[in-house]
Amino acid sequence: MPLEPARRTPEPFAPMNPSVITIIGSGMMGSALAFPARENGHSVRLVGTPLDRDIIAACRQSNRHPKFDRDFPEGVRFFQWEEAQTALDGADLVIGGVSSFGVDWFADAVLPLVPETTPILSVTKGLIADASGNLLNYPEYWKRKIAPAKRSLNAVGGPCTSYELVAHDPTVVSFCGDDPAVLDRIRSLLQTGYYHIETTTDVAGVECAVALKNAYALTVAFAVGLNEKLNNGRERIIAAMRSYAANGVTPEFRAAFGPQHYNSQAAVFGQSAREMRRLLQFIVGNDNQLHVGIGDLYVTVFGGRTQLLGCLLGLGLTYDEALKILSGVTLESTVIVTRIVTALRSWAAAGKLDLADFPLIAAFGDILIDGKTTQIPWSQFVR
Amino acid sequence: MPLEPARRTPEPFAPMNPSVITIIGSGMMGSALAFPARENGHSVRLVGTPLDRDIIAACRQSNRHPKFDRDFPEGVRFFQWEEAQTALDGADLVIGGVSSFGVDWFADAVLPLVPETTPILSVTKGLIADASGNLLNYPEYWKRKIAPAKRSLNAVGGPCTSYELVAHDPTVVSFCGDDPAVLDRIRSLLQTGYYHIETTTDVAGVECAVALKNAYALTVAFAVGLNEKLNNGRERIIAAMRSYAANGVTPEFRAAFGPQHYNSQAAVFGQSAREMRRLLQFIVGNDNQLHVGIGDLYVTVFGGRTQLLGCLLGLGLTYDEALKILSGVTLESTVIVTRIVTALRSWAAAGKLDLADFPLIAAFGDILIDGKTTQIPWSQFVR
Repeated sequence: MPLEPARRTPEPFAPMNPSVITIIGSGMMGSALAFPARENGHSVRLVGTPLDRDIIAACRQSNRHPKFDRDFPEGVRFFQWEEAQTALDGADLVIGGVSSFGVDWFADAVLPLVPETTPILSVTKGLIADASGNLLNYPEYWKRKIAPAKRSLNAVGGPCTSYELVAHDPTVVSFCGDDPAVLDRIRSLLQTGYYHIETTTDVAGVECAVALKNAYALTVAFAVGLNEKLNNGRERIIAAMRSYAANGVTPEFRAAFGPQHYNSQAAVFGQSAREMRRLLQFIVGNDNQLHVGIGDLYVTVFGGRTQLLGCLLGLGLTYDEALKILSGVTLESTVIVTRIVTALRSWAAAGKLDLADFPLIAAFGDILIDGKTTQIPWSQFVR
Repeated sequence: MPLEPARRTPEPFAPMNPSVITIIGSGMMGSALAFPARENGHSVRLVGTPLDRDIIAACRQSNRHPKFDRDFPEGVRFFQWEEAQTALDGADLVIGGVSSFGVDWFADAVLPLVPETTPILSVTKGLIADASGNLLNYPEYWKRKIAPAKRSLNAVGGPCTSYELVAHDPTVVSFCGDDPAVLDRIRSLLQTGYYHIETTTDVAGVECAVALKNAYALTVAFAVGLNEKLNNGRERIIAAMRSYAANGVTPEFRAAFGPQHYNSQAAVFGQSAREMRRLLQFIVGNDNQLHVGIGDLYVTVFGGRTQLLGCLLGLGLTYDEALKILSGVTLESTVIVTRIVTALRSWAAAGKLDLADFPLIAAFGDILIDGKTTQIPWSQFVR
């Protein structure tokens, strides 16, 4: 059977500096990166692995990934694995979109097709033991595997689920790699008004951190299930899981298992952990109790009264409008934000710290102290 | 009008070492602590502030706090503020249950009624600036205020909302104070099978951490509202907030604003942050990227596929049962848990680290590697 033509539609964008971005693996995360890449005007080629044949066929037919609820931007081109060499021809960036089960396949089948000078950005998160039992991150694992050859192997970490990236929910991620200039170039290709990118050469740190979260997420989710069992019984959740396994994230699944999107709040949570840690170091002199604050932050986001005010402000209400709705509710968070930002401003004025290290809480001081309206200062998180 | 009698019912418990615990302030958190205190068999006296008159009257009438959905344990006694001296007579522990707006009142009106040798445990979270602009925690603020007198002023931090404590959802909190022996004594009075207590003399660290979370919770909640606006519109949430302001946490409020309880998952999240940090320090040699892992953990708990497996295990399903329901779903977390715990076990065997520092992930290794069923090892978090 002849392959379908790879190009579906003409490219509607006219970017200043269009590049060619080839994504290998049409799982959800790899496919989702086609959105910012294409919206920035680049030529985007999405290539399925041998396991992705049906996904690519569906994308060609409908311009939509079977697990997403909206179409790809016009002009993304879809390739079956047999067409990979064509799709890689002239690529300025190759995005590796395989799962941790495809790590060896990526090294053995994909890397030999990519010129050594082409940078690679991998979304695969994980650690793998070497012969001595040391845990390697995947860029390190691939480097050892292809040595003595050298490649620019970069990776993505940070809070970003694919379907929310597709929905344009704001978030902040970290691109890590050995060369800051390459990282800046990759960032310029993919950064948008909703996809904010910090860069770091601390590959071991980012990759270990985000691999560990996959492990610990299982433990937190266990507690979610524990509470469901204690308070609501098991059947609703089990039905939701069956639905996910059959149909992915559907409106029915979201209704049973939480209505919200989480990328944006996770990015703010990560920045909160960072600023809380800096404040503990400055005020207390150590950050040994950070975990107590992190756990307490988590429950307050969901279970405390602070969520009410913050959520109303995030909806776009003014402080006065929000207070009117919450008339009679004790709102202690306003006191502590005001006190902390007042102190931060005076410490900054005295040259003791740099207010730019606390952009998140400073923005909320602007709301509560100065009566301004504010947005989350995403770009200041990734200076 | 004569005061109602303070004692409603005889005390049904026959504890080995009953103590007298007097709680000042019948807000939600102070009142919730009556549950573990009374269930442990102690004499519990709940005293309203002058602002709590209606609450105390309601408690006397129905043995239920107006904002809770279940009765107090039999035998809790309720006092109006005028009866405070009686309620404090012979108290072995005084719990301060005022909000941050009542901090000066607590020092001026309550402390003079309490013998100096009686330990105090405060639930109030916050920081307050002194004349030089330094931020003090409340135990420190009170100490300066009552100096040269000395008191045992202890405090509670950590993830614990009142209505979930009342529901007996498992959680882990931190009691902090100057004297480890006093902390052990207070812990012995209040610890139950669902209320797990770690103790530390790092008062500045705990109190700063949990005050900061109140500030940063506002910022994360802002992102929740931002997403609601982007994805679902504003009206459902605004209606839920109005309902909360009028009636507190009702089933209608929970349905509109998230169906779950959060204490347990927050406690596990805090322990996850702690173990992830130790693992970063051991594997990478620093923990500079902890915030990336924390943000990514947060989104994975809610938005990733790991949530599905973890939640099913937490519901009480075996690993095999859960895998059957999730047939076809890529579950990368099982790989990373297995690899990490395998490595941890070998590092522990070689004497490089202590497996007891990683009780949470070790328990999940028992499930995934050894096929055991497990519970969350709460008591190992608070060794």
